[in-house]
Amino acid sequence: MAPYLHESIPSQEIDRQKALYGPLAESVRGLVDATIRTEVDDDEIRAATAEIEAITARLRTRQIEGSYGVRFNSIGETRPWGNAVVGLRNAVAPPLVIEHDPTGRAWSEFHLGAAYEGPPGLVHGGVSALILDQLLGEAAGAGGKPGMTGTLTLRYRRGTPLGRLRAEAHIARVEGVKTYAVGHLSDADGLTVEAEGVFILPQWARAAFEERQRQSAPSRFE
Amino acid sequence: MAPYLHESIPSQEIDRQKALYGPLAESVRGLVDATIRTEVDDDEIRAATAEIEAITARLRTRQIEGSYGVRFNSIGETRPWGNAVVGLRNAVAPPLVIEHDPTGRAWSEFHLGAAYEGPPGLVHGGVSALILDQLLGEAAGAGGKPGMTGTLTLRYRRGTPLGRLRAEAHIARVEGVKTYAVGHLSDADGLTVEAEGVFILPQWARAAFEERQRQSAPSRFE
Repeated sequence: MAPYLHESIPSQEIDRQKALYGPLAESVRGLVDATIRTEVDDDEIRAATAEIEAITARLRTRQIEGSYGVRFNSIGETRPWGNAVVGLRNAVAPPLVIEHDPTGRAWSEFHLGAAYEGPPGLVHGGVSALILDQLLGEAAGAGGKPGMTGTLTLRYRRGTPLGRLRAEAHIARVEGVKTYAVGHLSDADGLTVEAEGVFILPQWARAAFEERQRQSAPSRFE
Repeated sequence: MAPYLHESIPSQEIDRQKALYGPLAESVRGLVDATIRTEVDDDEIRAATAEIEAITARLRTRQIEGSYGVRFNSIGETRPWGNAVVGLRNAVAPPLVIEHDPTGRAWSEFHLGAAYEGPPGLVHGGVSALILDQLLGEAAGAGGKPGMTGTLTLRYRRGTPLGRLRAEAHIARVEGVKTYAVGHLSDADGLTVEAEGVFILPQWARAAFEERQRQSAPSRFE
């Protein structure tokens, strides 16, 4: 497993990187959407394909090995920038900006477009699961005890339309290394999907977690 | 809800579209990966961002309204090309190529890279859920009774490493409009995540489903 990477960089440098990589990933999100929806001529499609390959080749002239991982600095700022739900640099991620409070609540409002479709016009059932897994995990982390998903159960009450949505989660109870979290996804008309999950502080992280009482360390694992 | 769109187009035209849009989406998948991993100079990042925005603007000069939907033709070929797991035109999708058999089994082998990360070096727990939702749904559809997800339960046995993976699912039993499916995700060392789900033939689709005994119609809903 790739390590949680500690980097000694100040907040100012993190802000600089956000201002650089945020717009890059955002431009790629626009391109993902356009790739699904475009109806321009075949020649235009072929030209775009070649140009995209050329840009990718330039970006790859210097790149990290493997995946981004989760990085954090000395004041505990975490950068899960490759994360599939919240990753600033990941165009697969909408990305969600998730708010927390220390009582173990997490919530987010966001928009899902054409790239998140399952049934026509509706959010893919698995995308709802993906988002709720992240929200429940962040609620567990916000409550002070982060964990990896042990079990996750989703109940689909009705189809979730693509568009503006809200997700929220909170801690139901904590038993030792296990945190039980519940949450739901909703649109303007109310609840669409309910979720409950168990998040387990991994064995290898338990010593680090105790250390965290004294020092900075990641407050979430995904 | 957007309709399931019937288009009277021959297989040959579908093949032509695959050869055009497949490489476009594939180039965007490469760009998504490079966006996460690049370490080139700031000026190069800014130049890439501007060029990507320009390509997107050109692709958007003519585009469909909203999402792609699910399209099918007179011989029952289904094109869920915007789908978040299997969509040929969707760069959020790995995409999975899923095999089926008529007894209600579905399976797929695929690679997940940096864009599907949760914990460092591991597949996001929600991405595992996303993929298993699709596999279980396709098993239900392969058995002759497609459906939308009613409930889905995931049990995470250990972390799933990014890289080469396999997912498979089969029908456990059918009760009227409900199909119970089970499946799992595995790497070279064996099982990592187990799933079970209930897939429900939607009310609005029941008449269409009976009609399908005689004619072509979509064999899956997501």
